[in-house]
Amino acid sequence: MVKDLIQDGLTAVEAQLRDVVHSDVELLTDAGLHIITSGGKRLRPQLGLLAYLAVGGQDVREVVPMAAAVEMVHTATLVHDDINDHSLTRRGKITVHAKWGRTFALLAGDYLFTKVYEMMAPYGPEYNVIMADACIKLVEGETLQAIAAKAGTMDRETYKTIISRKTASLFEAAARMGAMIGGGDEKSIEALAAYAYNLGLTFQIVDDILDIIGDPEEMGKPAGLDLAQNRGVMMAQNGGHGDVLEAEVAVAELPDDPIARMMAQLRESGAVEIARLQAEETAVRARTALDELPDSKIRDEMLELVELVLDRNR
Amino acid sequence: MVKDLIQDGLTAVEAQLRDVVHSDVELLTDAGLHIITSGGKRLRPQLGLLAYLAVGGQDVREVVPMAAAVEMVHTATLVHDDINDHSLTRRGKITVHAKWGRTFALLAGDYLFTKVYEMMAPYGPEYNVIMADACIKLVEGETLQAIAAKAGTMDRETYKTIISRKTASLFEAAARMGAMIGGGDEKSIEALAAYAYNLGLTFQIVDDILDIIGDPEEMGKPAGLDLAQNRGVMMAQNGGHGDVLEAEVAVAELPDDPIARMMAQLRESGAVEIARLQAEETAVRARTALDELPDSKIRDEMLELVELVLDRNR
Repeated sequence: MVKDLIQDGLTAVEAQLRDVVHSDVELLTDAGLHIITSGGKRLRPQLGLLAYLAVGGQDVREVVPMAAAVEMVHTATLVHDDINDHSLTRRGKITVHAKWGRTFALLAGDYLFTKVYEMMAPYGPEYNVIMADACIKLVEGETLQAIAAKAGTMDRETYKTIISRKTASLFEAAARMGAMIGGGDEKSIEALAAYAYNLGLTFQIVDDILDIIGDPEEMGKPAGLDLAQNRGVMMAQNGGHGDVLEAEVAVAELPDDPIARMMAQLRESGAVEIARLQAEETAVRARTALDELPDSKIRDEMLELVELVLDRNR
Repeated sequence: MVKDLIQDGLTAVEAQLRDVVHSDVELLTDAGLHIITSGGKRLRPQLGLLAYLAVGGQDVREVVPMAAAVEMVHTATLVHDDINDHSLTRRGKITVHAKWGRTFALLAGDYLFTKVYEMMAPYGPEYNVIMADACIKLVEGETLQAIAAKAGTMDRETYKTIISRKTASLFEAAARMGAMIGGGDEKSIEALAAYAYNLGLTFQIVDDILDIIGDPEEMGKPAGLDLAQNRGVMMAQNGGHGDVLEAEVAVAELPDDPIARMMAQLRESGAVEIARLQAEETAVRARTALDELPDSKIRDEMLELVELVLDRNR
């Protein structure tokens, strides 16, 4: 019953995402549909829908454009990320820039971002301020990450700032706006925002762990890709091993390829286990935030989502 | 008096543009200020201010955030354009991507675009729909241009579509929103929108002419730059010479460098004169649109702006 409501909402989000990218400039439609139909997890729209239903929202059609818009922000940034990361595959499919080239990928990303703006416009100032703020934080987070990658350094504080801005902010905005559209009171809105924010942190830490220990086939992208850009270095930091990492692993066992070598070091160092504990800590915070809400089927769904994010293997 | 009002508005726009790009991620502040302080013509904010005053708007502070936002859209697209065009100079200064590299230029452009969204959010749905639409058209226009450049073809119809979307739409949106914020009636809003739209077409045609015959020092960028990407090919088409162009100019007189060669051909072919007539035609349409408005000092300013756009040499 509750699952049906969420599924109906997600089906409507899917339809809107496909609908809204249509342009008489066919290349933009094609590139937009290519990335949209490549099968993302749709976590951000789910959070919007769940928060809406959690506060008693009665007609999911109210929340669908916002839920589609937060997924579109994510989609637009994926297209630009893949340019900057020179990634050739994403979700097991060729990336937009690998298929259409860098110039068109840059424009396609811009185009998807203008579509966010179009979808959000009708909601009015209160919502657009929240969404604009989340988008600003996201770009700031990506920039901090690129700065750290270039400098070849990443400390624990910087890592936290990066994942908070580039991932958790948009998760939070989705739930906050969903709860607002559903007419939630302030206490519920803040509880749902805190839930989603912490779920976002959990998601990103698990993502970075999977980049080191995940199965490339399940992930739909090569392992070590993010690590190669220094994202995963936080794990070494968390492990408290830093520079001495290499000494702790028998050199004979280490592969020659520098990425494979670093991944092996990270696996052996205990850094992954510590990152895992951090993911579990943020998951506890996400669950605890929901204590503010009354028992309900929707609340059960949200608790289940924490487990799914924590235990996913792709 | 009227000039003072406009100047006050533009000064406030300048301050807001500098203010809004501040981020605790210093690179984004620096890159934003770099492009913002490189001395653009600020035509789009001027149109917003003029339209606001033309319908009797009394407090320019109402219109300043919108006027700054339309300039910010333009600024964001310049940063991304320069990546795609591999341009090293813009307005006589090093480009963002030449200074900070492609990755950060892409992110800086995204960042400036999120700032547009932040500035516009308070205006509410009616305005944000107009702005989103103008942004979508702009990206579509840029994409059509890149497609034509890649294919090596450009016909007169495509050229018109491109300049309408990539330039005239944002000019139009600036004036339309300015007139709306000023409380104009429908007739005035449409007249000012038509004025600005045609001024945008005039501006872009003159821009493409200057790329062929302009003084690189005055322009602050190398001549033939746009031509090299096939934008100026429309001039050959307009001249009706197309493929036979080369035959009409004594071969001995043509330089070896392919860009210099093509520019010489275009200058000799009559294509520039025909493009000039098109610019004058769209200028007439811009002036005529103002017939709907009563005589006023502001209206005189707007007529003067048409002459400035038509007669500029940079």
